[in-house]
Amino acid sequence: MKVAIIMGSDSDYKVVEKTEKVLKDFGVETQVRVISAHRTPNRAMEFAKEAEENGVEVIIGAAGKAAHLPGVLAAFTVLPVIGLPIKSSTMDGLDSLLSIVQMPKGIPVATVAINGAENAALLAIQILSVKYTQLREKLKAFREMQEKEVIEKDEAFLNK
Amino acid sequence: MKVAIIMGSDSDYKVVEKTEKVLKDFGVETQVRVISAHRTPNRAMEFAKEAEENGVEVIIGAAGKAAHLPGVLAAFTVLPVIGLPIKSSTMDGLDSLLSIVQMPKGIPVATVAINGAENAALLAIQILSVKYTQLREKLKAFREMQEKEVIEKDEAFLNK
Amino acid sequence: MKVAIIMGSDSDYKVVEKTEKVLKDFGVETQVRVISAHRTPNRAMEFAKEAEENGVEVIIGAAGKAAHLPGVLAAFTVLPVIGLPIKSSTMDGLDSLLSIVQMPKGIPVATVAINGAENAALLAIQILSVKYTQLREKLKAFREMQEKEVIEKDEAFLNK
Amino acid sequence: MKVAIIMGSDSDYKVVEKTEKVLKDFGVETQVRVISAHRTPNRAMEFAKEAEENGVEVIIGAAGKAAHLPGVLAAFTVLPVIGLPIKSSTMDGLDSLLSIVQMPKGIPVATVAINGAENAALLAIQILSVKYTQLREKLKAFREMQEKEVIEKDEAFLNK
Amino acid sequence: MKVAIIMGSDSDYKVVEKTEKVLKDFGVETQVRVISAHRTPNRAMEFAKEAEENGVEVIIGAAGKAAHLPGVLAAFTVLPVIGLPIKSSTMDGLDSLLSIVQMPKGIPVATVAINGAENAALLAIQILSVKYTQLREKLKAFREMQEKEVIEKDEAFLNK
Amino acid sequence: MKVAIIMGSDSDYKVVEKTEKVLKDFGVETQVRVISAHRTPNRAMEFAKEAEENGVEVIIGAAGKAAHLPGVLAAFTVLPVIGLPIKSSTMDGLDSLLSIVQMPKGIPVATVAINGAENAALLAIQILSVKYTQLREKLKAFREMQEKEVIEKDEAFLNK
Amino acid sequence: MKVAIIMGSDSDYKVVEKTEKVLKDFGVETQVRVISAHRTPNRAMEFAKEAEENGVEVIIGAAGKAAHLPGVLAAFTVLPVIGLPIKSSTMDGLDSLLSIVQMPKGIPVATVAINGAENAALLAIQILSVKYTQLREKLKAFREMQEKEVIEKDEAFLNK
Amino acid sequence: MKVAIIMGSDSDYKVVEKTEKVLKDFGVETQVRVISAHRTPNRAMEFAKEAEENGVEVIIGAAGKAAHLPGVLAAFTVLPVIGLPIKSSTMDGLDSLLSIVQMPKGIPVATVAINGAENAALLAIQILSVKYTQLREKLKAFREMQEKEVIEKDEAFLNK
Repeated sequence: MKVAIIMGSDSDYKVVEKTEKVLKDFGVETQVRVISAHRTPNRAMEFAKEAEENGVEVIIGAAGKAAHLPGVLAAFTVLPVIGLPIKSSTMDGLDSLLSIVQMPKGIPVATVAINGAENAALLAIQILSVKYTQLREKLKAFREMQEKEVIEKDEAFLNK
Repeated sequence: MKVAIIMGSDSDYKVVEKTEKVLKDFGVETQVRVISAHRTPNRAMEFAKEAEENGVEVIIGAAGKAAHLPGVLAAFTVLPVIGLPIKSSTMDGLDSLLSIVQMPKGIPVATVAINGAENAALLAIQILSVKYTQLREKLKAFREMQEKEVIEKDEAFLNK
Repeated sequence: MKVAIIMGSDSDYKVVEKTEKVLKDFGVETQVRVISAHRTPNRAMEFAKEAEENGVEVIIGAAGKAAHLPGVLAAFTVLPVIGLPIKSSTMDGLDSLLSIVQMPKGIPVATVAINGAENAALLAIQILSVKYTQLREKLKAFREMQEKEVIEKDEAFLNK
Repeated sequence: MKVAIIMGSDSDYKVVEKTEKVLKDFGVETQVRVISAHRTPNRAMEFAKEAEENGVEVIIGAAGKAAHLPGVLAAFTVLPVIGLPIKSSTMDGLDSLLSIVQMPKGIPVATVAINGAENAALLAIQILSVKYTQLREKLKAFREMQEKEVIEKDEAFLNK
Repeated sequence: MKVAIIMGSDSDYKVVEKTEKVLKDFGVETQVRVISAHRTPNRAMEFAKEAEENGVEVIIGAAGKAAHLPGVLAAFTVLPVIGLPIKSSTMDGLDSLLSIVQMPKGIPVATVAINGAENAALLAIQILSVKYTQLREKLKAFREMQEKEVIEKDEAFLNK
Repeated sequence: MKVAIIMGSDSDYKVVEKTEKVLKDFGVETQVRVISAHRTPNRAMEFAKEAEENGVEVIIGAAGKAAHLPGVLAAFTVLPVIGLPIKSSTMDGLDSLLSIVQMPKGIPVATVAINGAENAALLAIQILSVKYTQLREKLKAFREMQEKEVIEKDEAFLNK
Repeated sequence: MKVAIIMGSDSDYKVVEKTEKVLKDFGVETQVRVISAHRTPNRAMEFAKEAEENGVEVIIGAAGKAAHLPGVLAAFTVLPVIGLPIKSSTMDGLDSLLSIVQMPKGIPVATVAINGAENAALLAIQILSVKYTQLREKLKAFREMQEKEVIEKDEAFLNK
Repeated sequence: MKVAIIMGSDSDYKVVEKTEKVLKDFGVETQVRVISAHRTPNRAMEFAKEAEENGVEVIIGAAGKAAHLPGVLAAFTVLPVIGLPIKSSTMDGLDSLLSIVQMPKGIPVATVAINGAENAALLAIQILSVKYTQLREKLKAFREMQEKEVIEKDEAFLNK
């Protein structure tokens, strides 16, 4: 089980590290890289073309502004690519979101919320769990824990 | 290999039938249903809770306006859920898109473009192909065919 | 007279406490709870299904991002549900607003302004006052007081 | 049980007649009027001031563009006011929606979706049902019927 | 020459005081008031109805969110009304702008930029100068001064 | 009393002719011209510089897309300039509106609604009426007539 | 003088043919091609890498939705790349515009208006005219002709 | 090789100085000026009319809000004009972007990202490099350096 997390700029790591953490917590091997679709286009292409034979099973592409990275990676591989739109200094992330989610017919990108770092990881895990049933059990445990946390907060309010 | 396609209203079928067609072309079993998160909430819950044991491996939820369906389904299952925002009569699909993609931390929905019917199918197939390697080969063949189509059009222009 | 205030996350309480305060000032019994449509969907359903027999007369659902909570509660009850969109870290609350207000035909949510905490309470009181005429008198007194406050500020400027 | 439906222009009636129909189907008395907050401001004020003593229990205000009507009515009465944003020829209804829903602190308007004519009626009925329990039963019957309609469509697809 | 500056809330004064200052610098009499279209609707109506006979020649209405104030004042007077949209805590002023500028046919509001306090004053002066030619001369002097300021900055850069 | 109506393209005349008609109905002399801020910038400058001495008292500038015309005219004259944003084939008029209304400090443009042709005329008349009191009487008569029209429609609904 | 016009889909040709026509009218050699950044990424890369040595001096990339094409081409060449956002069936071209114009630091795309086909050509010609002075004279003649057309329309209105 | 950088206000210099720096690093002569399309329209016209004979080869116009400067300059010259939209205190730069990029047919502006200061410079250099081949070599070296920087960051993550 290996997920590659590619970010367009190392400044995205403050968001992306939460993606990495969730994946590690689930015992999924991760590879975090900085590859720019625009400044290192050859590396982007090479990474995507070789990802499958390098054992990567899901790719997460995180980028801001005119965020082409996830779509460019998706063009060079048939692996599922998750797009994580990063909020930048203008437009409140709407530019990143539309640049990632509005992919034309033929090459999809599985887009999560703007700065939705944890959800990018959880979606990768859900995708892997189609194959790796042990992940499905971990996901169910995670859901229960998450549910319990909300319930505890609820009960704190009920008992106030 | 089974993909459930749930739409919030039967009027969404004019978009969704393209999703169904692509999946069938890839030899993936599909189940198309009309379940409203708001008008048939119990059925939505039941469907999602039982989807895994019913052999569903990926769920596609298509809905418009305040499109809660994919998120509601995702809350009741750990299967990967793809959200297909449907353009309705106002707001040009922006309401559907934001209602689907901006899921809060904990429950992701893999969102594709507004009315991106074919891409919802292709994403489901890419997810399944993590497990079913024969789909990966079909995807590569599809990509080649798709590439060839564009190249033919390119050559038509070059030879004009 | 009982109003349930359900928030999708305890972090919404910094907004929601103003809702609670206004209701208490009007002598309306409140119940503040943390129930997530996505992380605790069963509790959301149970709460909504049982709200009427538990004596709740109006429900306020407060949530951010892809804010499904008010719509999900509304799907399981015929009690009036007020939606309070919470501004989150991106999109300036537009995602919350559209996810709440653009409900499809059949299940309405009475939506107030983004972070409009006091107005959510006042709307609940106006709804209750259809039945409880003493609230109508309190509302009129509140309106007069509110008017007086503005008039005092106006006169301060006039006398400057 | 009386609901006043006020529209800012008679051209809004093509939307508003669906509101009127739903209310009549539930046996609620309706009064449909054309009152412009801008072109007949005195009538707007008079209507709102006298609505309570004229036996009106809920007001629905439908308007487009810079849609001030619901807010202006709400300023002159403590009755609950439902705002129905009408889509006009530009801005896809976003101007109407924001002009109605973003009411400042003190005077709420219960806003429904752009052109959400039926939901404006259903919300009025839910509000009335706080007092008139027979409406609650009718609402439950309506919900069941509505659920049944979706289920029938679902079964049509399942049996295809 | 008298301009009334009406703001919907005294919190708008941090913007509006710049409007007042420009008018005073041009020797125009000003009256700054706090009148809410929603919380003091009767005063809004009375002010607007009596403005003409009270010697007001131009009205500036400043308001935020669902900013009905300028439109409501305009409905009760034939004096020119300038709308000054105030940026509030959400939506970056877009709600204020659309609520003010998108007035339906029949009652115009002369809208300036979001938080465009000085321009609201300058527009009022330009309107008055149709009648009071001495203001036109002052405006020309102001324009020259303003031009000179930019030219000085330009020359500072040219000489760097 | 003379109002110049300048449009950026003759294709805007389908909107602008309504402006012209209202002005003529009020007995105001109009001059309709096609001057592009971009394609005939010298003429735009000359027109604006000479407008005052040519007896123009108010200028209306109508333009679409990156609508610079009203602002460019306003830069060369101290006459009040009304901006009429024209809806073009994309962006639903939002580009025109923002390009006209968001004028920086120093040079205001009195902006009306997107395609608000009649209101542009009425605003010009209100501005002229500061000087020409006979126009104020005509405006009051117009308002009464307009009010009467709405009242008649209201009564038609009341008597249905 | 050679300009390559690359479109992401042959359906864009209904817009792009106007670009081609303007360039031909100016005597600039054009090459129109269909290359998809997503469906034929290798061809996109190859074209861009070889464009300079193939004598191309300016590239125009036209694409809709998540329009990555101009940015992807720009990443593989130092030739100036003009981005022409194409309006597609949803979002009124805003997605295309933001995907093209919001390029991150390092790789610019010279963006023109949504569907601004003629301007894409004119911009290419202006860029070429930095080197080829004969184009500058043609541009001036074009501007004069364009000015004359507007003046004729203006005079038609003046003489009406 | 001379590039003129015109900003609408000296407050834009905090963005524009990055444009100036990149141009200087490439050995391009720059001239930074403050010229307002609205407050110094004559100077804007004069600058643009004389730019060509003053040896300017590319113009960069930086402005915020209703940012007319680049379009106004472009109207008076056939030199290529680059538009740099500056984010101001409201609307997150969307007003600047649309006011610059949505230029009507006939007069293009080569628009870069909101606050895209470096890219405005790089685009100017790419345009100049059509004529000055030495710049093309510098651009290639810059691209390599830029690529190397990303690769180093990538390797830092790979070696973590």
